[in-house]
Amino acid sequence: MDTQKRGGRFTLPGESGYEKLTLELAEKWGADVIRDSDGTKLSDEILHAGYGIYSTICLIRDHNQWASQNMDKLQQCFLMTPPQAAPDDTLSISLLESFFAEQFKINDSPDAMKYWQVYDRTENQLVPRDQWKYDAPSGSVAISDAIPFHTYTVSFMAYRIWEEISMYNHTTNHWDKEHLMQIDPMYPETQEYLLQWMRQWCESHPDTTVVRFTSMFYNFVWIWGASERNRNLFTDWGSYDFTVSAKALDLFEKKYGYALTAEDFIHMGKLHVTHMPGTPQKKDWMEFINDFVISFGKKLIQIVHEYGKEAYVFYDDSWVGIEPYNGRFEEFGFDGLIKCVFSGYEARLCSGVKVKTHELRLHPYLFPVGLGGAPTFMEGGDPTRDAKEYWTSVRRALLRAPIDRIGLGGYLHLVEDFPDFKDYIAALADEFRRIAELHKEGAPYHIKTKVAVLHYWGSLRSWTLSGHFHETFRNDLIHINEALSGLPVETVFLSFEDVLNGALKDVDVVINAGFAGSAWSGGDSWKNARLLQELFRFVYEGGAFIGVNEPSAVEGYDSFFRMAPVLGIDEDTGERQCHGKWAFAVEEEPGLLPKGSYVKGKGNYSRGVPFLTDGKAKVLMADGDVPALTMHPFGKGMGIYLSSFEKGAENNRLLLNLILKAGGEELDGLYLTDNPYTECAYYPNSGQLVIINNSKEEQSAKIRTPEETLSFLLTPYETKIISVK
Amino acid sequence: MDTQKRGGRFTLPGESGYEKLTLELAEKWGADVIRDSDGTKLSDEILHAGYGIYSTICLIRDHNQWASQNMDKLQQCFLMTPPQAAPDDTLSISLLESFFAEQFKINDSPDAMKYWQVYDRTENQLVPRDQWKYDAPSGSVAISDAIPFHTYTVSFMAYRIWEEISMYNHTTNHWDKEHLMQIDPMYPETQEYLLQWMRQWCESHPDTTVVRFTSMFYNFVWIWGASERNRNLFTDWGSYDFTVSAKALDLFEKKYGYALTAEDFIHMGKLHVTHMPGTPQKKDWMEFINDFVISFGKKLIQIVHEYGKEAYVFYDDSWVGIEPYNGRFEEFGFDGLIKCVFSGYEARLCSGVKVKTHELRLHPYLFPVGLGGAPTFMEGGDPTRDAKEYWTSVRRALLRAPIDRIGLGGYLHLVEDFPDFKDYIAALADEFRRIAELHKEGAPYHIKTKVAVLHYWGSLRSWTLSGHFHETFRNDLIHINEALSGLPVETVFLSFEDVLNGALKDVDVVINAGFAGSAWSGGDSWKNARLLQELFRFVYEGGAFIGVNEPSAVEGYDSFFRMAPVLGIDEDTGERQCHGKWAFAVEEEPGLLPKGSYVKGKGNYSRGVPFLTDGKAKVLMADGDVPALTMHPFGKGMGIYLSSFEKGAENNRLLLNLILKAGGEELDGLYLTDNPYTECAYYPNSGQLVIINNSKEEQSAKIRTPEETLSFLLTPYETKIISVK
Repeated sequence: MDTQKRGGRFTLPGESGYEKLTLELAEKWGADVIRDSDGTKLSDEILHAGYGIYSTICLIRDHNQWASQNMDKLQQCFLMTPPQAAPDDTLSISLLESFFAEQFKINDSPDAMKYWQVYDRTENQLVPRDQWKYDAPSGSVAISDAIPFHTYTVSFMAYRIWEEISMYNHTTNHWDKEHLMQIDPMYPETQEYLLQWMRQWCESHPDTTVVRFTSMFYNFVWIWGASERNRNLFTDWGSYDFTVSAKALDLFEKKYGYALTAEDFIHMGKLHVTHMPGTPQKKDWMEFINDFVISFGKKLIQIVHEYGKEAYVFYDDSWVGIEPYNGRFEEFGFDGLIKCVFSGYEARLCSGVKVKTHELRLHPYLFPVGLGGAPTFMEGGDPTRDAKEYWTSVRRALLRAPIDRIGLGGYLHLVEDFPDFKDYIAALADEFRRIAELHKEGAPYHIKTKVAVLHYWGSLRSWTLSGHFHETFRNDLIHINEALSGLPVETVFLSFEDVLNGALKDVDVVINAGFAGSAWSGGDSWKNARLLQELFRFVYEGGAFIGVNEPSAVEGYDSFFRMAPVLGIDEDTGERQCHGKWAFAVEEEPGLLPKGSYVKGKGNYSRGVPFLTDGKAKVLMADGDVPALTMHPFGKGMGIYLSSFEKGAENNRLLLNLILKAGGEELDGLYLTDNPYTECAYYPNSGQLVIINNSKEEQSAKIRTPEETLSFLLTPYETKIISVK
Repeated sequence: MDTQKRGGRFTLPGESGYEKLTLELAEKWGADVIRDSDGTKLSDEILHAGYGIYSTICLIRDHNQWASQNMDKLQQCFLMTPPQAAPDDTLSISLLESFFAEQFKINDSPDAMKYWQVYDRTENQLVPRDQWKYDAPSGSVAISDAIPFHTYTVSFMAYRIWEEISMYNHTTNHWDKEHLMQIDPMYPETQEYLLQWMRQWCESHPDTTVVRFTSMFYNFVWIWGASERNRNLFTDWGSYDFTVSAKALDLFEKKYGYALTAEDFIHMGKLHVTHMPGTPQKKDWMEFINDFVISFGKKLIQIVHEYGKEAYVFYDDSWVGIEPYNGRFEEFGFDGLIKCVFSGYEARLCSGVKVKTHELRLHPYLFPVGLGGAPTFMEGGDPTRDAKEYWTSVRRALLRAPIDRIGLGGYLHLVEDFPDFKDYIAALADEFRRIAELHKEGAPYHIKTKVAVLHYWGSLRSWTLSGHFHETFRNDLIHINEALSGLPVETVFLSFEDVLNGALKDVDVVINAGFAGSAWSGGDSWKNARLLQELFRFVYEGGAFIGVNEPSAVEGYDSFFRMAPVLGIDEDTGERQCHGKWAFAVEEEPGLLPKGSYVKGKGNYSRGVPFLTDGKAKVLMADGDVPALTMHPFGKGMGIYLSSFEKGAENNRLLLNLILKAGGEELDGLYLTDNPYTECAYYPNSGQLVIINNSKEEQSAKIRTPEETLSFLLTPYETKIISVK
């Protein structure tokens, strides 16, 4: 294994004032590129040490001078006041009272005002324009002829006067700097400014080899509240509500032939979370914004290229409008995509994008505190442990799909007091490079059964839902995606439209996982009879459908789960409280359920109780007298139901076993370990076999190859690479 | 306390062959009436011993000779076959395959066939009549031009050829008697037969003083399945689906001007459970059946009266069509209503009916095995313990509302081996008589705050939901009703229509308790803006709204709980997964939460998470970071939210405390005990104070009267009656 030369594929965060440390660690970790970070700079000594140089830019902030002269070209959004009941026939509503005053400023220009809306939320009726009046000095709307005890809201347009990431860092880390504002490139003036700024920037950064765009223009939605008890009013990495302006709305109307209203974004105050199905209007708006971000974004990238530099994009805060999976990402002309990762699915998300270089920014970030404020590089922190755990989550995905580079970010000097961290990263970087090289000779072996994850967004939301794991863990699907990210299973993501267009002919198993009404389960999409017909036929002819939580659920039909005839399971929403339920015994299926695997029941069964429809499903796990994991024959295929799914070594293997079973494959097939705490990947072209231990205990494992059964003993977290050809 | 003469108000089940025991126990228990039971007879010695005599009759069974000559006048119902997927364009569906063959017989007469329906359930479309054919020999329907992989059902009409209660006893107790059939009085011939039979019966029972109708004509719905693993397909004590016949449907159409279809009953196979809101069609049908049951029922009662006998009705299996709370019960002309009771709410249900005599049939039934097959009067049984526990549940309700009589049922000889049971019943009967006498001098003291329970059915379903506690325990409301049944609180039951008609002016606190979409929560009724207006105004002006589980919940508005502005609580159905939630600390409210009281959280929060809407609700209990019990100001009144409610000594007192708080009363007001395991009732007219111990431990309690604070020590389960005037 020493055939791979050490070094390369590693981006190191340099720090001026710590030149020695920077260059020492660049050597130790095998870095070929040095970067700056938010808050750090690179000195000439570093810039000229012979490394590639990444420089981070954030396009839409750091222009406060221009911004303060163009306050009408700041980014905006719609806001809705909390519903307020009218005690009599008049009502005054203060617009900004519930919002963080430092984030927003009312946009009461005539252009914007024409988009304001007042709603009677009791009846969800728009209040006629002549029944309300805006009072600028008090920032409030007075409603006349209100219906007593109806509730009212005002949807208005606001400038965002403090760029959210800057605001967050400021507030969290008690910064005391100027508030950065974000400028909106939707205006030709802004575009003109940014184009000249980009040129200027390239001119003044001759040492930079890679311009690392910290995303492009528009932040994910992050609305802050007035109260410290409820500062975070709304966050969704997949929402486009921060792209709005009168200008953009006007352009949209011209292009699409119809006008959007505030309500299309506000949606009764719920906004449109990515976890729920979208609307046709939302889809159009996303397309419109993507068009714009690509068309203007690529002009900036061209400038970078003109200066002989590469352009990478960091898929992060202001990623909105850069959809890596809408089939148009290549139009930007980026040379690389960098993704920060906590989890395996994020590595797969990065790997699958059509771009030359795929890079991961690993965790922990070199910062005193980490996620949720826990200590990292300070007393009480254990950054090596953190790094190991994150790496273990990510490594299994790296075995399945190629990543070109890794890197770190933050303040390099913080690692000085953590010598074991320095050593660990050196080892990790070596391990990464060896894995990366393996992929060069060809893809790893995977089982025959091909899986499709089916949901409303389809491939547009491949691997991710709408952010990091800790933000989306309540959804079964992120657990499924995370499990799949490291399984030897070919996986695609399909939308319901894809199924209607015949996509099932290329897959063997369909997974649908989510709560009723969510984008992941599918909601109203399941009203489509043709969709059901496609899926029923697919299973009847030998395919399999794996449903998790409330798969295919929609109200208004004889079954709540539309796939109930396939699953042999439905859920009682209360309408069947007086219906008897099939009694069953939990049956065994040899080898299928790894020791320690589980399916959590739903706990409270006052509503939403899974039950057997025809008594023919084999119950493999139950929560009391409620089925939790079942298999049901349908034609030549089968339906498999799990009342929930949680990732984890045992459950990941459970999922693999279910997929093998669904696909008619052996549970102890080739190149599978017999111990769920271990996994392996075989690269047929090079004859290399990688075995990993995902646990912090020593593990033994057996692996069948066509010739023999190999036995291994693995130290905690170990990666073993052997040649079996 | 010995001023009350022992004896009377007690109905004893006699048994021929055990004359000595019968008369001994009649003396010991102070019986004034002796009855027969299902399976027992009274000998002349008993009949002529000077006691009143109840004789039980069941009108619609025990006529097998006539029935077998009139098989076309047996009772019927609609059945739907389980949905079946069509693998190609033809499909054959066997009608009875999934049903218990001994219960049903297909009614394929032309009159009935015209009501049959075949449905494409994938699209919920009626299949045209010319696309399906019934094959009588095989009992199946063949569908042509089916759409492949759509599912289909057949709704057909079936005779019920085995009266369900007879079928149940037969099957459960391995009887081997003739199967009794139930005749349908909807036919003039049946009516003629029954009228002459009733006369004959009266002639041949000269000793009978009270004819005890074991309900009237129509059984609650109880559909049995073919498989022993799923024998009970459907049971609902409040459903009217066993009243159906081509005859009745034809008469309905004539009267109401529109025709009902099979689907109006079948409802996609879900039927209409009482826990869900009904339809206008269902309401009309219930009215139609009630009209009929009253109009023909009273003819039978008149005959009984003509013979100088009284007519009591046992509110039981065939009660359908006898609504004690639809305002028309008096039209029957009954002299008494008998209700079997496990719980306090059933005693209140009985007490509140407008009829001369209210009688309770206590449990345990004198039978070897009791509820759920547990031993009672046999080895391993402890009937005294059972009797004590049932009595303790019922007693607190008897303190609040008058009941005239109690009784037992079953095989008297079984008590011979249980001397402690004989003694306990003697003591219980005395206790009952003393309580019954207390009410004669006037109603007990109650707190000022008047409570309305608000749901879809309103007063029609006063106190009960649709059966016994153990059948409905998953619904918070039955717990609420049970708690209320023994609290010193005036309680009414309101429908949403009542509220629209101004009913709130007479109440102080409104309780709405149930899961979203249920009849108890209200479902679509909450779409009515006027309803909200009434309730908002009511609270704003000083009233209170107590919401439990998913009060006022309906989809499609800015809040899921329509009363959210009053409650300060809403529930996230998933659409607000990306919205921040208010942080809170659990606060104390001195004396409000009895030690040991609790509100169960919902356990699984993947969907349906309660959250604070405006941060102003005071959180009194929480399940982790999810509020479980809150109080929220609204105008001069308040909204109180509980995520669930379970009955029990501590929680009953919690509910009382919340009501006192909501009504602005003191928690330690007059005639309230200071120990939740005890309760009391004060009868101002007689100056009597009853204190009960609801626990099996000794308890002490203090009670404030206007003059002093009294202290008591109570033995387990004790009832103490003292004079405080």
